[in-house]
Amino acid sequence: MALLLDNQFSPLPNTSEVATKPFLDSVCHLPPFFDCLGSKVFAPIKADISGNITKIKAVYDSDPAKYETLQKILEAERSVYGSNWPKAGATLALMWLKRGLRFVQIMLQSLADGDRDENNPNLIRVNITKAYDGALRRYHGWIVQKVFKAALLAAPYRSDFLKALSKGQAVTEEECLAKVRQFLVNFSVTVDAIYEMYTTMNAELDYTV
Amino acid sequence: MALLLDNQFSPLPNTSEVATKPFLDSVCHLPPFFDCLGSKVFAPIKADISGNITKIKAVYDSDPAKYETLQKILEAERSVYGSNWPKAGATLALMWLKRGLRFVQIMLQSLADGDRDENNPNLIRVNITKAYDGALRRYHGWIVQKVFKAALLAAPYRSDFLKALSKGQAVTEEECLAKVRQFLVNFSVTVDAIYEMYTTMNAELDYTV
Ligand SMILES: CCCCCCCCCCCCC/C=C/[C@@H](O)[C@H](CO[C@@H]1O[C@H](CO)[C@H](O)[C@H](OS(=O)(=O)O)[C@H]1O)NC(=O)CCCCCCCCCCC
Ligand SMILES: CCCCCCCCCCCCC/C=C/[C@@H](O)[C@H](CO[C@@H]1O[C@H](CO)[C@H](O)[C@H](OS(=O)(=O)O)[C@H]1O)NC(=O)CCCCCCCCCCC
Repeated sequence: MALLLDNQFSPLPNTSEVATKPFLDSVCHLPPFFDCLGSKVFAPIKADISGNITKIKAVYDSDPAKYETLQKILEAERSVYGSNWPKAGATLALMWLKRGLRFVQIMLQSLADGDRDENNPNLIRVNITKAYDGALRRYHGWIVQKVFKAALLAAPYRSDFLKALSKGQAVTEEECLAKVRQFLVNFSVTVDAIYEMYTTMNAELDYTV
Repeated sequence: MALLLDNQFSPLPNTSEVATKPFLDSVCHLPPFFDCLGSKVFAPIKADISGNITKIKAVYDSDPAKYETLQKILEAERSVYGSNWPKAGATLALMWLKRGLRFVQIMLQSLADGDRDENNPNLIRVNITKAYDGALRRYHGWIVQKVFKAALLAAPYRSDFLKALSKGQAVTEEECLAKVRQFLVNFSVTVDAIYEMYTTMNAELDYTV
């Protein structure tokens, strides 16, 4: 479980504001998650998510005090970009990044909940599809949806995926899932808070790519 | 025709050796070709090809005299990498790059030759598929082939594609195709020479991704 548990997300303060630095420190461990999926087909996804993170980090690094929380980034960019906001800067990068995070959240939750295709118990297509439907499908045009459908065939077996998540340790499936659940606690709170913020600040867009 | 004609490839010497510097100078104008295809679906392809070029350029820049021709690069790397060669360094990057170049070559040639789907005269799927079959299919596993098939649906209309190739100039279709034919002369000789070199040096691999 090198990948997940070693990089727990931090709990949030009562204000539910997400501090930028710890968020970036945790989230940068997620792109390797896509290597667990085991196929080069996922490289463009990893690249897209890494690009989002790089963009947010560049803004943060330019003035760590000013951009102490994610909310401060959105507020500052809203004044700077005017009518181009929210389709600009770190606001846009985080808008897409949160969708990738939601994808991961739903997929892991679905695994933890024991969702399974009884006819193919060792496939995770049902969990991936649930995550895709919940997090991304509506932002993808029909061609990208078709590409997704093809790429889904490259998804690893459930057993291989859990083994990859537990990289370097011999753990049972139940132990692995227990750690996934533990990881999901702060992770889900963080993702939910970011979604909440986009809604509150009217920063969400629903164009498709 | 800003894209193509302004960046003609150079003729080759009698030895058919490809000089690295002019090759890199010309080939770096090709990734934008994929922007002509008009969809973000092609971004990962553009990134892959750009990555190949960057890798070859880095080797060349490390010692321009030593790596004066592409052949010199392969010869030098063959000694350095031992049994890991040819799946290493600029040799690997050029192995894949030449397949992308062959794709472009076949596709443009097919357009220039007037290959058309009589039932869908304004589609270029038939030209793209011909190029894919000739240049790439055998190096792709069935999942990537399926992704290709989905991505093909994002291909632009023939008229839009030709217009994009002629960017910034009002030219007739016939004028555009004439310039494509002119571009293809040195381009094809160059691509053919690189393929020839890989065969002669026994540097070709046929693993799939
Ligand atoms: C030879 C054959 C070749 C065929 C090639 C076909 C290639 C097909 C390419 C598929 C697309 C790859 C994924 C990337 C999709 C991206 O297009 C979208 C939007 O991406 C955003 O776009 C913004 C502008 O609108 C900004 O540039 C953002 O960038 S900014 O930082 O600059 O602001 C950027 O993230 N991101 C997304 O949809 C996010 C995707 C997250 C994915 C989450 C997990 C999914 C797991 C799936 C498991 C099965
Ligand atoms: C949310 C939904 C998400 C779903 C995401 C699915 C994404 C699907 C991804 C599709 C793949 C994108 C294209 C890239 C394919 C690449 O995998 C291959 C091999 O790439 C090579 O691999 C080597 C190692 O084996 C080295 O790393 C090379 O790198 S090195 O420089 O380091 O040595 C590298 O180029 N290149 C290729 O196949 C070359 C492709 C050329 C394409 C030419 C034009 C095709 C036009 C098609 C028009 C229709």
